[in-house]
Parts: sequence; C-alpha cells; structure tokens
Amino acid sequence: MNLEGLRVMGIDPGLTRCGLSVVQAGRGRAIIPVSVGVVRTPSGHELTERLLRLSKAAQEWMDDYNPDVVAIERVFERGNVSTVIQTAHAVGVLMLAAAERNVPVYSYTPSEVKKAISGNGRADKKQMTAMITRILGLSEAPKPADAADALALAVCHCWRAPALARTQQQGAWPSS
Amino acid sequence: MNLEGLRVMGIDPGLTRCGLSVVQAGRGRAIIPVSVGVVRTPSGHELTERLLRLSKAAQEWMDDYNPDVVAIERVFERGNVSTVIQTAHAVGVLMLAAAERNVPVYSYTPSEVKKAISGNGRADKKQMTAMITRILGLSEAPKPADAADALALAVCHCWRAPALARTQQQGAWPSS
Repeated sequence: MNLEGLRVMGIDPGLTRCGLSVVQAGRGRAIIPVSVGVVRTPSGHELTERLLRLSKAAQEWMDDYNPDVVAIERVFERGNVSTVIQTAHAVGVLMLAAAERNVPVYSYTPSEVKKAISGNGRADKKQMTAMITRILGLSEAPKPADAADALALAVCHCWRAPALARTQQQGAWPSS
Repeated sequence: MNLEGLRVMGIDPGLTRCGLSVVQAGRGRAIIPVSVGVVRTPSGHELTERLLRLSKAAQEWMDDYNPDVVAIERVFERGNVSTVIQTAHAVGVLMLAAAERNVPVYSYTPSEVKKAISGNGRADKKQMTAMITRILGLSEAPKPADAADALALAVCHCWRAPALARTQQQGAWPSS
C-alpha cells in the first residue's frame, strides 16, 4: 500500500492546551512535517465558551490543511476524573469537527504512540521529543510537549496505516 | 423576576439514549410542556458517527424550538469510567451546539434536579416520573426514563432561574 501524499492531522486533545499537527507521508517511511501548534483556552472561561473556541480552531486547521485522516489520543481512563471528563468533552467536539468533514478518525493510546515512535511503550517525554525531532528532521525540538505529542500521533498513524489497511475491510468506517 | 414565556431545553445527555425536552415557563410556577423525545445512536456504530448523529439531532431541536436556555445534567464522576467518558463526549457536542447558537447552558447534578422537583435529593426514578407527570399535567407518564429526566432538568431550571438571576451579575456568562 502506497501512502505517499497522505495527509495526517495529529491531535493531542485537551481543553487548556490542545496540540495540533499536520504531516504528510513521503516515500517509504519518510514523513514531511507540514504544521504544528497548540490551541489554548483560558481555564477561567466557561466550559461552553472553551469548547466553542477549541472547535473553531480545529475546524480552521481542518479547512486550511484538508487532512485525509485524523489521529487522536484516546482518552486515558486514569488520573484525575474531572480532568478526564474535561478532556473527553474536548475529544467530543474535535471528533465532531472531523465527522462533519467526513474525515476518518483513528484513536491511539499513549503507549501505542510511544511504541510506534520509539520502540518502547514506556518512553518518557524527553525520549519521545528527541525521536520526533529526528524523524521529522526538525532543526529544533517542538515545544510545548503537547505539540510534540500531536506530531507523534500523526507519525504513529502514518507508520501504522499500512498494517491497518491490510487488516481492515475496504469501505469499513475506521475504528475510533 | 418574571420568567413567563422563557423556553428551556432540558437535556439528559447520553450516547446510546439522550433525552431532550422543551418546556415554557408560564405564570408563577406553572410550566407548559412543549416537546419531549429521546435520540438514540446505535452502540455498534463508530463513536465519530454517533457524535455526528447526536449533534445533528440536538441542532435540529434547537433550530425547531429556539430555546432561550439549555439545562443539562452534569457528568457524574461515578460508576463505569468508560460510560462516564462516553457521556462526556456527548456533552461536549451538545454544549457546542448551544454555544454555536449563543444559547446559555446551565448544568445541574442529579441530586439538584431531584431536590428541585421532589424536595428530596435522593428521590427514585418512580417518584421523579410521578412528580414530573403531575407538575406538567401530562395525561400519562413520559417514557423512557431519559425523557422524564430531560423534562425534570428543564423544570428544575425554570424553578431555579429566579434565584440564579438574583445571585448572578447581569451580563455574566452563565455557569456550566
């Protein structure tokens, strides 16, 4: 399966900081970075307003970069429950933006991303950032961590997509 | 504060079943039922597709009934974590639909709703349904429970709104 030219948008979801990235698959395992950034919504603002801001930003990215697919981090059922709920609200509006554009969404757990990028499902942030910087041939490490994570998600999808394509039925709606 | 004519949309959020209702405040504590229903999305379908369906349904309701305010159940940090996450995804797209229309959203906990409707924060489903049926002068009990809960949320807001208005600054974005 030739993925050359496939545009993947990587999303590290969050309400306070949401990492967004776009990469394009090149020849073989090569990946070209297209854009990376972080959307922030002020924690003092109301939830509805923050969701609206995040949704608008994600929609602008999708309209500007026209990704073929979105790779997003699966909400992790661990840690502070109210943070998990807040992140899940954010994921709802982010997935909706993709669904409204008929862009398929794939979800990956943090350890799946770490394993795909570094070979180690328990790699730390420093290792992950170093790997992403090297893989994409960046002149400096992407900051903050949310930006690096968004790139890692997009790269993870590029490298896993061929295997997914082999195991999935043609025409099936992708897993989320 | 005279609320007469205020249209409140009540939402009992969920992905498998989402209760939607619209009521209108009448004179004094009187409340007129306008509409009630349940949106279902098939559990076998992908999350993105389910969120899109739910969003479209909620948007249609908002466009059809033009509520002045939305009252939604706050996601409860208890029970099965994956159900909590799924409900939080749903709440994200429901709140977004309201925010996109500039309709303020108020969240209430289950016990706040129970207390407002029945005087007892621990009332059971049967009591709540009986109270809602009586308050709204319905000829039969609303079914399923999600429909009754959506009506209860809307009534709860109607009865709490005068107190909220007294304690809130004019022009402040409502709490969510």
